Amino acid sequence: MELYIGNKNYSTWSLRPWILLAQSDIPFDEVQLPLDTPQFYAALSSVTPTLKVPCLIDGDITVWDSLAICEYINDTYLAGKAWPADPKDKANARSLAAEMHSGFPALRREAPMNIRATRSLTLSDAAQQDLKRIEDIFAGQMARFADQGGWLFGQYSIADAMFAPVVMRLKTYRLSFGEVAQKYVNHVLSCPVLQQWIDAALDETEIVEIDEAGEPVKE
Amino acid sequence: MELYIGNKNYSTWSLRPWILLAQSDIPFDEVQLPLDTPQFYAALSSVTPTLKVPCLIDGDITVWDSLAICEYINDTYLAGKAWPADPKDKANARSLAAEMHSGFPALRREAPMNIRATRSLTLSDAAQQDLKRIEDIFAGQMARFADQGGWLFGQYSIADAMFAPVVMRLKTYRLSFGEVAQKYVNHVLSCPVLQQWIDAALDETEIVEIDEAGEPVKE
Repeated sequence: MELYIGNKNYSTWSLRPWILLAQSDIPFDEVQLPLDTPQFYAALSSVTPTLKVPCLIDGDITVWDSLAICEYINDTYLAGKAWPADPKDKANARSLAAEMHSGFPALRREAPMNIRATRSLTLSDAAQQDLKRIEDIFAGQMARFADQGGWLFGQYSIADAMFAPVVMRLKTYRLSFGEVAQKYVNHVLSCPVLQQWIDAALDETEIVEIDEAGEPVKE
Repeated sequence: MELYIGNKNYSTWSLRPWILLAQSDIPFDEVQLPLDTPQFYAALSSVTPTLKVPCLIDGDITVWDSLAICEYINDTYLAGKAWPADPKDKANARSLAAEMHSGFPALRREAPMNIRATRSLTLSDAAQQDLKRIEDIFAGQMARFADQGGWLFGQYSIADAMFAPVVMRLKTYRLSFGEVAQKYVNHVLSCPVLQQWIDAALDETEIVEIDEAGEPVKE
């Protein structure tokens, strides 16, 4: 099984299925391609009709899009356990995952994932609203589940995979949350599997100009 | 079970779960709210944390986001039959549904769903690329499945629900496809359940300025 991904420093969409697979101890081969290069498009042209990452090749099955790959992994390798067992929690987890999948456009545009950077920036009102909604989500889930495993629904789920990149954005742009929501941020940042991704991102040297936002900050 | 939706003339996100429920003969109550009005936000404030439609209330379960609602309906009321049975087809259907869920931003921005209008517009290169990808999807699926029921994967699936709004955009802006892809467009437009939605849209009188694009065309 091969997962095609982009630069670990920048590719939010790639991080999601990668971390679900890694966190679930499912073996896979990683094929990394530098975003927005001729090599990237040449390699993907025979792999996926969208020419985008992530893309999962599992035998004769091709799955593209981060959320579709997570659902496929859940169906095929995790016997449904990547969603909470309780139907109400599952419905909420799916709603949160889908909300992240198509939403928060202002925050995503203004504060690109850029793991190795430390920056300051001024967010628009729309991006601040996005951020407030994310804080509310984290705080609401932690109020219920912080003591049941530390993830959004206690045990690890696709919702956590979908929100991993936004936690990296918070770190880069030094955005912090209130105490309850911050519990989740800290839990994610202490995850050894995510740390592997971060370490690899720190070793990368490619620059994707469109994802370089904000003003450098001396640490 | 109540499905909260917006104006049928404009609300692409609402159409998706609505048509999956209606096409699957699942009984539900429709709660329609006029988009972007004080009444809309007041009514949703006690219903969904996102203040967006669609939102499904099923007993004590709340599901927001079009794709999450479709997955919930599939799990809860359709025993999984809203995805193709074949694992490869299911993976592809999920990929297409997710691609629609988060993609095609230029086409969606430039050519809003506006069912009662007939307009002409000039699409940007990015929107034309989006349109080309959609044509390729329709043509590819029809080449395989046109004779097996007429839907993207032969029998009706969530992929069809997710692509219904884009077919309405094609109609409004008089965009047509090559013969094979157009087969799917014509199949969708001949769907009696979609016709019910269209008839209701034609009776609406509210104007949402941001969704009024293009130049009027005399029919």
